[in-house]
Amino acid sequence: MEKRGLLYEGKAKKLFVTDDPSLLWVEYKDEATAFNGEKKDNMTGKGRLNNEISSILFDSLHAGGIATHFVQRLSETEQLVKKTDIIPLEVVVRNIVAGSLKKRTGMSEGEELAPAIVEFYYKDDDLGDPLINEDHIRALQAATAEQVKELKKQALEINETLKSYFLENDLLLVDFKLEFGVTQEGIVLLADEISPDTCRLWDKDTKEKFDKDLYRFGIGSLQDGYSEILKRLGGAKHG
Amino acid sequence: MEKRGLLYEGKAKKLFVTDDPSLLWVEYKDEATAFNGEKKDNMTGKGRLNNEISSILFDSLHAGGIATHFVQRLSETEQLVKKTDIIPLEVVVRNIVAGSLKKRTGMSEGEELAPAIVEFYYKDDDLGDPLINEDHIRALQAATAEQVKELKKQALEINETLKSYFLENDLLLVDFKLEFGVTQEGIVLLADEISPDTCRLWDKDTKEKFDKDLYRFGIGSLQDGYSEILKRLGGAKHG
Ligand SMILES: Nc1ncnc2c1ncn2[C@@H]1O[C@H](COP(=O)(O)OP(=O)(O)OP(=O)(O)O)[C@@H](O)[C@H]1O
Ligand SMILES: Nc1ncnc2c1ncn2[C@@H]1O[C@H](COP(=O)(O)OP(=O)(O)OP(=O)(O)O)[C@@H](O)[C@H]1O
Ligand SMILES: [Mg+2]
Ligand SMILES: [Mg+2]
Repeated sequence: MEKRGLLYEGKAKKLFVTDDPSLLWVEYKDEATAFNGEKKDNMTGKGRLNNEISSILFDSLHAGGIATHFVQRLSETEQLVKKTDIIPLEVVVRNIVAGSLKKRTGMSEGEELAPAIVEFYYKDDDLGDPLINEDHIRALQAATAEQVKELKKQALEINETLKSYFLENDLLLVDFKLEFGVTQEGIVLLADEISPDTCRLWDKDTKEKFDKDLYRFGIGSLQDGYSEILKRLGGAKHG
Repeated sequence: MEKRGLLYEGKAKKLFVTDDPSLLWVEYKDEATAFNGEKKDNMTGKGRLNNEISSILFDSLHAGGIATHFVQRLSETEQLVKKTDIIPLEVVVRNIVAGSLKKRTGMSEGEELAPAIVEFYYKDDDLGDPLINEDHIRALQAATAEQVKELKKQALEINETLKSYFLENDLLLVDFKLEFGVTQEGIVLLADEISPDTCRLWDKDTKEKFDKDLYRFGIGSLQDGYSEILKRLGGAKHG
């Protein structure tokens, strides 16, 4: 496998093409951003932590029978993934009230949601990634009705697998954001990343936060939080 | 029928109880408000115009076989309605892109939506009536899943009837907001009002605006716009 030119540089990752047109080479960056890029800082070690955590979580999904774009970890900060056409939706699953759900609905942080809530946000930085409903998705032609059904089904399956996996490691999966893509064969596949940048993770008992909220609200060290997550997930194997 | 004590005073209407516990006496006020009450003015004649227009529109729905809370017009500014427990949702139906849909999705004002879009907003002034999805409705216990289905079905039926009725009178029904209530018998019934306060109505050909946007954006006389709507709906009968 050979790394070729840069395809796309986002806030958290660089994507490179490879000599295999169906595969992309992902490099996790040391940059932390929040509030749609308004807050931004270099954080040494973040790329490694997210690449390691994301690799472990994709492996755990594969072990649970859920296909993803993840092919293999390449180095401390790099991984190989299947190239997809990203569906322009952020799919959020929530098990416990926090963040924008608290703001939107007035529900109390920490309240348990059973069954889980699924939300769709339109991936558009200029619009601020707005919450939309299934009628909006249709009008925007962001996804077909069939894809929306598939996204919800996969998101809820992924939630069950990840929730159990985190709980075995004394972590509560509060909520998380997923991105899906369509492969050349037309298969809807989990893509992007699963990391403390895209999940809220709390200590099972003390409810201590270990995720990006540490950085968002300046309430603790991002590196310490992410390291604690990697440690609990048995990161020694990878890290 | 006897009017008794004030039950509730809103921004646009006063509701009084009557000697019949199943009926309410509604008085349409001369107050105009916009942006969740931030903008507010007295508008002589608005109560009459909205009461007349709302009465005509409820009658047209009844003629189309759709039940509503409307019982009868009592005077220029008053009507009698069935008492309901209001479901805390604003149900919005959109045939053409305008207003917050344009802002949210970046779609262009005037773009036609077929099929129509249905949106649910949580009726809570402190939260600014946020857009929510069906999972939020369930978590908030704002309505049952069965009621949500019923709201969508009725909203789309109401849209078909009103759209045709307005078009016959050279008006485009761009979008509108409905509120539904549950009667003592457990029936989900259209309640509140249907007026230029709660609908966007444009001239069929010139696309001239005749609704509350005149007041919201200070682009014309509210009374002139509402009078034009009443005239086109054959308001002489009522007015
Ligand atoms: N398998 C994949 N195939 C194609 N693109 C992918 C794949 N996985 C992730 N991406 C895309 O890679 C881009 C870079 O990721 P990064 O997290 O840095 O983006 P971002 O700054 O969050 O910006 P964006 O708003 O585009 O998501 C994202 O747009 C993401 O959707
Ligand atoms: N049939 C009905 N039974 C009970 N309440 C009703 C009925 N029809 C309308 N209402 C309620 O009457 C209230 C007064 O109407 P108005 O339009 O003035 O309220 P508003 O200022 O818009 O405030 P709100 O935010 O409560 O809707 C509203 O809360 C509305 O839900
Ligand atoms: Mg990203
Ligand atoms: Mg009202």
